[in-house]
Amino acid sequence: MATIKLKDISTRAPKDWDKEETKAKITGILEKLDELQNLLFAESKHAVLVILQGMDASGKDGVIRNVFTSMNPQGVNVKSFKAPTAEELSHDFLWRIHSVTPHKGTIQVFNRSHYEDVLVTRVHKWVDDKTAKKRMKAINDFEQLLQEHNSTTILKFYLHISPEEQEQRLRERISNPAKQWKYNEQDFEEAKLWNDYMEAYEDCFENCNDVPWTIVPADQNWYKEYIIAHTLLKALEKLDMKFPGLKK
Amino acid sequence: MATIKLKDISTRAPKDWDKEETKAKITGILEKLDELQNLLFAESKHAVLVILQGMDASGKDGVIRNVFTSMNPQGVNVKSFKAPTAEELSHDFLWRIHSVTPHKGTIQVFNRSHYEDVLVTRVHKWVDDKTAKKRMKAINDFEQLLQEHNSTTILKFYLHISPEEQEQRLRERISNPAKQWKYNEQDFEEAKLWNDYMEAYEDCFENCNDVPWTIVPADQNWYKEYIIAHTLLKALEKLDMKFPGLKK
Repeated sequence: MATIKLKDISTRAPKDWDKEETKAKITGILEKLDELQNLLFAESKHAVLVILQGMDASGKDGVIRNVFTSMNPQGVNVKSFKAPTAEELSHDFLWRIHSVTPHKGTIQVFNRSHYEDVLVTRVHKWVDDKTAKKRMKAINDFEQLLQEHNSTTILKFYLHISPEEQEQRLRERISNPAKQWKYNEQDFEEAKLWNDYMEAYEDCFENCNDVPWTIVPADQNWYKEYIIAHTLLKALEKLDMKFPGLKK
Repeated sequence: MATIKLKDISTRAPKDWDKEETKAKITGILEKLDELQNLLFAESKHAVLVILQGMDASGKDGVIRNVFTSMNPQGVNVKSFKAPTAEELSHDFLWRIHSVTPHKGTIQVFNRSHYEDVLVTRVHKWVDDKTAKKRMKAINDFEQLLQEHNSTTILKFYLHISPEEQEQRLRERISNPAKQWKYNEQDFEEAKLWNDYMEAYEDCFENCNDVPWTIVPADQNWYKEYIIAHTLLKALEKLDMKFPGLKK
């Protein structure tokens, strides 16, 4: 039984949290991130993998747009995972993931990830529980490989929104002509499976936490972006990087 | 005989060109580019390929940093081409290029490109003139394929710097600890081959101009960035895109 219960975790910033102050902080963090990403690229000793998971309309695209746009695109890559192709399905589920893991010096952002193989697949019962457990074990081994054998820092974020906030955002997608292209017919059908998704996520957090998850209250975009930018900053600072000097 | 003579083309902005005014224009252009790139991504009917060529230290990295950072990294990808790997060399020279051409909805930036296969290779006489001519024909056919069969807009930029400006920038790379990682021992050796490179470029412009080159005066970064941002803006505006509405 999972020990984390998502419904007990707030989807909003703490009550006394100041929005304008936080936005100012974000600006400062983004400047530092730009510098550190340049250093990461110059030094090329470490790789960074940022995994974004969350329900439809939880704001994954917004994080990419607002947190990662400030950095040099030469060293920041984004991969969005959709339903696997026939070729991808003819390999193990980590095959398509492995080929786009970050090389040293770069930040790779995953918009959805290998976790879909124990989330959407599980909710729809395309895989049974036994297979899901085996996959979670394989995921742990895989993440350890990246950490130990390519000096990869892995940051895993779950964007935690409330079902009410999701519904509002999906309705906005239908009514706003500039957002209609993001809407899929099955979005509301998927939303009905909310509780099943929450259970599948909780099981992930329980079983795939060797690299810990950050659960990000995501109903307010400014708070969500602050938490992610701040977490990334701390992780990059910890790498203790320096410019490498002239090549030997 | 090539009709373009690079030494007759200025590497600087026209004399009466106002720097501060241009910088303000760039800011405005980048905002528009951000909007149009979002529309390109939403509509997903066109692809854009930006090719950056130029001598060492001509400022290709700077263009990527200053022009393309303003756009959502989800729809902007950068590929830097280095010396080909053994696997890449066991294929035709366009094989490694083709695999990273932009899919619809995205902008792909090439930092160096397939043109190196008729530039550095030719200057060092790794390929003879006859092979180079055949390659240029193949490049024209390839670019036509991308245009006709994937609705790809191709923008080719040559960053035109003077040998004096290059020398100054290479020296700066040696003396500035934050730039030393960019310096390669052979950079000054390559610089000695300046005239051979200019000839090879001129031959490219002559033979591979079905998709026209833009020769960008690049001694001043602000002017270089203005020309590229402005050219990209005009190209995107020409696509006459609109939000696609709800999926059918």
